[in-house]
Amino acid sequence: MIVITGASSGLGAALAYQYATDNCQLLISGRSQQKLTAVTAKLTATQQANVTTHVADLCIAEQVSHLFSQLSTPPTTVIHCAGSGYFGPIEQQSPQGINQLISNNLTSSILVLRELVSRYRDHKVNVVVVMSTAAQAGKANESTYCAVKWAVKGLVESLRLELKASPMKLIAAYPGGMATDFWSTSGKEIDTSSFMTADEAALMLKNALVATEHGYVSDLTINRG
Amino acid sequence: MIVITGASSGLGAALAYQYATDNCQLLISGRSQQKLTAVTAKLTATQQANVTTHVADLCIAEQVSHLFSQLSTPPTTVIHCAGSGYFGPIEQQSPQGINQLISNNLTSSILVLRELVSRYRDHKVNVVVVMSTAAQAGKANESTYCAVKWAVKGLVESLRLELKASPMKLIAAYPGGMATDFWSTSGKEIDTSSFMTADEAALMLKNALVATEHGYVSDLTINRG
Amino acid sequence: MIVITGASSGLGAALAYQYATDNCQLLISGRSQQKLTAVTAKLTATQQANVTTHVADLCIAEQVSHLFSQLSTPPTTVIHCAGSGYFGPIEQQSPQGINQLISNNLTSSILVLRELVSRYRDHKVNVVVVMSTAAQAGKANESTYCAVKWAVKGLVESLRLELKASPMKLIAAYPGGMATDFWSTSGKEIDTSSFMTADEAALMLKNALVATEHGYVSDLTINRG
Amino acid sequence: MIVITGASSGLGAALAYQYATDNCQLLISGRSQQKLTAVTAKLTATQQANVTTHVADLCIAEQVSHLFSQLSTPPTTVIHCAGSGYFGPIEQQSPQGINQLISNNLTSSILVLRELVSRYRDHKVNVVVVMSTAAQAGKANESTYCAVKWAVKGLVESLRLELKASPMKLIAAYPGGMATDFWSTSGKEIDTSSFMTADEAALMLKNALVATEHGYVSDLTINRG
Repeated sequence: MIVITGASSGLGAALAYQYATDNCQLLISGRSQQKLTAVTAKLTATQQANVTTHVADLCIAEQVSHLFSQLSTPPTTVIHCAGSGYFGPIEQQSPQGINQLISNNLTSSILVLRELVSRYRDHKVNVVVVMSTAAQAGKANESTYCAVKWAVKGLVESLRLELKASPMKLIAAYPGGMATDFWSTSGKEIDTSSFMTADEAALMLKNALVATEHGYVSDLTINRG
Repeated sequence: MIVITGASSGLGAALAYQYATDNCQLLISGRSQQKLTAVTAKLTATQQANVTTHVADLCIAEQVSHLFSQLSTPPTTVIHCAGSGYFGPIEQQSPQGINQLISNNLTSSILVLRELVSRYRDHKVNVVVVMSTAAQAGKANESTYCAVKWAVKGLVESLRLELKASPMKLIAAYPGGMATDFWSTSGKEIDTSSFMTADEAALMLKNALVATEHGYVSDLTINRG
Repeated sequence: MIVITGASSGLGAALAYQYATDNCQLLISGRSQQKLTAVTAKLTATQQANVTTHVADLCIAEQVSHLFSQLSTPPTTVIHCAGSGYFGPIEQQSPQGINQLISNNLTSSILVLRELVSRYRDHKVNVVVVMSTAAQAGKANESTYCAVKWAVKGLVESLRLELKASPMKLIAAYPGGMATDFWSTSGKEIDTSSFMTADEAALMLKNALVATEHGYVSDLTINRG
Repeated sequence: MIVITGASSGLGAALAYQYATDNCQLLISGRSQQKLTAVTAKLTATQQANVTTHVADLCIAEQVSHLFSQLSTPPTTVIHCAGSGYFGPIEQQSPQGINQLISNNLTSSILVLRELVSRYRDHKVNVVVVMSTAAQAGKANESTYCAVKWAVKGLVESLRLELKASPMKLIAAYPGGMATDFWSTSGKEIDTSSFMTADEAALMLKNALVATEHGYVSDLTINRG
């Protein structure tokens, strides 16, 4: 069973679709049942039978716990894609928008990883944390977005040390320059026509997650170009 | 005028004391008037006359704005020391403790820097952001603390790019292994007898902040040893 | 045409073998004709017909130039695997061993990238630079090895900036914990039985290098586990 | 006794002059006796009596060893400033210039640190390694210079791990934007009129090296501005 968060749009939705067409068993999560249903609507009946949708607000610990309570056995892979963007010069950002950005990206990631470590630290679970190239360098007019993404990177690097003796593995993915709804709702005007699509990023991430007997891709950056 | 946040204890209090004994004009801030008063109580009457205390919760934008409204002219230096610790394996941390950690360290830093950029970006103001060596590397059992400190570092690196043409300068300070009340209230048991005191760290930071005509120390890490 | 350096053993040899069995056209390089011949000996006659071997010492600029002069058209991909290891506490390392380490890893990488930029900067060439996880963090008893690997990373990051407007792309690969001859000749005793094989790393790297129309994996770390 | 390498010009010469005027005992090293003599010529007779000059090519292990054989007791501090610059697009750099750059910056640093660890690892010696902001980020048209500076940083970070139980401390200094002869001989045309002088950088570095009982500045970046 593969769990995908943030599956109602963007990379999460593209991954859900691709894994579903491979006939994988999936639990996909988002904040909108309507959007999750729209994702599964593109699948065949057989594929749909393999996909469970579950609405959850990952900024609330109980809902994170409830999400993983849907599973009767540990998942093989969890791909945490949930997140949102908020851009612009810092002095033009509102306290409310900042708080939402922090909740959607940092709080949710902490709560999801906390739940996963708590439940599955003794199991062979691959946890893929999808961040952004904004986690790797500072960027003008993305200061708060970089902040929350750097935070998740610091969290992942620290948890890798806590999980040294554990079969659970953390995989860090950093996509950059992807064309998703994300941008249109983020307050930053960008021409995304040459950007890679979420489908392209999903395909490359999916390929990179195919591990071998003694090895795996632990970190990858996916860029347009 | 020098503004110091988080001045009611630890490094902030030590800096406040040292600058005050140099007869600098200070505006010091913390969440407890009682603690701020205790800091100034050690000063002479003359020194006290130079020090204004102001209670503020820096997680609330209005209170951040109100703090800097105390000043009639731009400060020469702002030293942002406010922050708190919260440690331990991630699965043992509570959602409430995590939210508080995020507010005290990340939200407050965003709101303070947002206010400073908004008010003073065209002024020669030195903004010292005090983080921790936890901002520079992952650490086991400090995952959420590292997360919020990495966040502040990402914020500072991004804002430096936004402020490239501005006379405002961001200075990043990373103290590590300091013995302050911080530890006793943070849930992590550590023998701090060989740690440097807040006074020692304050002294080194204060020395490093003495700039020359064309140069300044932009980043410094202070360690015990 | 794909060019692979360091193809006489380890990851380079494994990549050569895998691409050759896919019937790719290859130019493979190493310092020993005997070893290169041994690599191609495992191939079928048809596959062998697609593989050209060329002996070159990449620490010498003329030989680097001569290697790429073998090609009549720009290669699609160059995978620079050449390198060697040298480990142990710094005070036990010899000046001669240090110089060789620098030449084999840093000088060769500079000369290869210099040649590639010089020849192909206006062409769509993918240049994969294989480093090591030693390029990403300091490691005790690998100080000089880390030094040369960090150097190559700094080189790649800088050249990416020089090539911003160029169709040439630099891809950074960081394998860690691979079981190759490398270790037995490097002076560091390690039980490599749980390490991934060069074949495994080659397979994952090869998969990750499959790009999409608007995107590609620009950086990847491959670890055992 | 303080040892300063690269003391015949730039930051090394400025440090030598400042410590000498503080009446410190110094051993200063460079490749030109003439230039070293010019540095001491500005001192009073009393100050000169405290300063020993020693010509050494630090790219040669025997000469590095010979330098420290001048001392009858372990030094308190060693400030390794020796280095040289070489800039421009990579395709315009010569193999000879590249080799010299590597020797002057990387080989010399490895040999100096190897000698210091070998001789003094059980002594309380502060070893200051002066790099550059080019060690911290990639820069276009400084690719090989960044490479060698990143290398030294990787070396220092690794040796810190090897020296964890040792009283010897490694201090990393990263000056940026300094106006020295360095630039005029480096092949990069830059207007350095607003750069900080070597004297300014020396003053700030010297201040930062004043440690307290339980703490010290382990890393500092000095920038113009």
